[in-house]
Amino acid sequence: MTVPVIVALDAMGGDRAPGSVVHGAAIAMRRLPRTQYLLFGDQARLEPLLRRYKKLRERCQIRHTEERVADDAKPSLALRAGRNSSMRLALDAVAEGKADCVVSAGNTGALMAMARFSLKMFPGIDRPALANVLPTQRGESVMLDLGANIECDAENLVQFALLGEVFARTVLGQRQPSVGLLNVGSEEMKGHDAVRGAATRLRAPGSPINFFGFVEGDDIAAGTVDVLVADGFTGNVALKTAEGTARLMSDFLRAAFRHSLTARIGYLFAAPALKKLSRRLDPRGYNGAVFLGLNGIVVKSHGGADAFGFANAIGVAVDMRNNGFLDLIRDGLQRLKDLAPAPATAG
Amino acid sequence: MTVPVIVALDAMGGDRAPGSVVHGAAIAMRRLPRTQYLLFGDQARLEPLLRRYKKLRERCQIRHTEERVADDAKPSLALRAGRNSSMRLALDAVAEGKADCVVSAGNTGALMAMARFSLKMFPGIDRPALANVLPTQRGESVMLDLGANIECDAENLVQFALLGEVFARTVLGQRQPSVGLLNVGSEEMKGHDAVRGAATRLRAPGSPINFFGFVEGDDIAAGTVDVLVADGFTGNVALKTAEGTARLMSDFLRAAFRHSLTARIGYLFAAPALKKLSRRLDPRGYNGAVFLGLNGIVVKSHGGADAFGFANAIGVAVDMRNNGFLDLIRDGLQRLKDLAPAPATAG
Repeated sequence: MTVPVIVALDAMGGDRAPGSVVHGAAIAMRRLPRTQYLLFGDQARLEPLLRRYKKLRERCQIRHTEERVADDAKPSLALRAGRNSSMRLALDAVAEGKADCVVSAGNTGALMAMARFSLKMFPGIDRPALANVLPTQRGESVMLDLGANIECDAENLVQFALLGEVFARTVLGQRQPSVGLLNVGSEEMKGHDAVRGAATRLRAPGSPINFFGFVEGDDIAAGTVDVLVADGFTGNVALKTAEGTARLMSDFLRAAFRHSLTARIGYLFAAPALKKLSRRLDPRGYNGAVFLGLNGIVVKSHGGADAFGFANAIGVAVDMRNNGFLDLIRDGLQRLKDLAPAPATAG
Repeated sequence: MTVPVIVALDAMGGDRAPGSVVHGAAIAMRRLPRTQYLLFGDQARLEPLLRRYKKLRERCQIRHTEERVADDAKPSLALRAGRNSSMRLALDAVAEGKADCVVSAGNTGALMAMARFSLKMFPGIDRPALANVLPTQRGESVMLDLGANIECDAENLVQFALLGEVFARTVLGQRQPSVGLLNVGSEEMKGHDAVRGAATRLRAPGSPINFFGFVEGDDIAAGTVDVLVADGFTGNVALKTAEGTARLMSDFLRAAFRHSLTARIGYLFAAPALKKLSRRLDPRGYNGAVFLGLNGIVVKSHGGADAFGFANAIGVAVDMRNNGFLDLIRDGLQRLKDLAPAPATAG
């Protein structure tokens, strides 16, 4: 492709904005030479920052607005009152075809509400899902939904499976990603109606999904499958449980190394290897939760992300765009539709 | 109390039975001097084992049966065909008042089905819940339900809160254990009807529960509350996610120490402290998942538990019995009943 990718950035969203956004774009630009940027935000604050990044300055335009969505704003209020906010204008740029994708580190709920309003859902997808990439024993997996939908039926889960599968192909570069449904056991009769109904459809002959079957909580870290599908309640609890457990282990480990003089000496010797381990688990490398299912590419960076984290989120958005995420979703939906008519006969 | 506690043991349940059961009872007996044991199982296999433990021999009786529930038996089949199994006879001993509590390391589903049939539910409790103690940043917490009930309503969650609270008091020795409901956020409007309805009832003035409010996945390892309440689907996924993440971290750590010669040297110095850490997280210390809500005390030991793990499970059962678990549940249910009539007016 020789056409440049135009990335719309909510320059005012996130704890360290606009500095982290501008610096993040400068880092991303070096890795992604065919990208151009539309920066939505306060010109008076952006111009001085851009002076430090001459090459970025040549490849970006500022779209001035003084309004921004507050981090604690209620989604409904942001939707009504934030029509001229940096977040909303960045989304509108994608809706109007002036940009190819959008990245924001702002208020998650507001971004979701505004994105649904501005971009609408992708035709054939009922609800958006929040997805993220996680480090595992075998490499990386993507998990969704992480909290956008508290209650889900079988059809929602099937759509999430497709969204996650295409994400794994376009962003993680996996050829035939395997998909698992999070459940309380691996046997076919386990779980509630939604997971069993979804499994029946995903197992049907001709399904476009490489369906592994049911997986359990410990399969997340094991990396048993490339794509983990759950309702938003379960997915959110699982993600935060994993984060909390990792933090507990790190704290216990730190305490163990402080425990005695010999342990401290041990730490000195082991430090380079331990630092390599901590880089392997660096959450910045896994920044860029994505709203999937919208009629446009929207990446949500973590609110506290620094420039490197934000650059990674830009990379996710550009990969989705360059590798034809939306076209692959359209194709997958068609193939799901063409499947044997009813779940009952298909299973 | 001077009356001895009689513990019924399913001597044939578990991967290492009957050796781990007999050895486990011998260990438990030393810690719990007023206990006596009824061993249900194959006399020809139990007698030779007991010769090694003379003191235990004096305080136990064998109830011979050659039948046992297979580890892979379907609960419904075990219920129909296992009337003379070691598991079923041990449960019946409690139901008939011949023993005070029962411990089994056998087939979980069969134990649950048989226990419900033999002991019945505690009056006022609708469903049994599976609970376990977990290590946290602040000490120990108990989490339930861990998979016995895939779908739960508000009333089930309120009952689980009471069961968990009384367990924390009688087994962990906590005075006024705090109780949290696992949810996707801490604000009152978060989550689905079941968690919000349960929160309204638990928050009501006069509630016997020290209700903290909603907690999230990362609060499990943080130890934010003493008792974590969830439906069985979410609780099961969360528990296994935590176990899987802890395993991933340990494996990464081991790889880091093998990474270079200096890292290996570092390990030698740090080994004692690291071994102390691994003892702190030793799953054997947390063995003894409990079925709560039955009209009797039933402790499920892990199927793979060794004698030390099994002894710990016996300790849990005896603590519940000695500290009046069933009386406290009766009392708590009465106080919940006496609360302001409807959740809508109480909230």
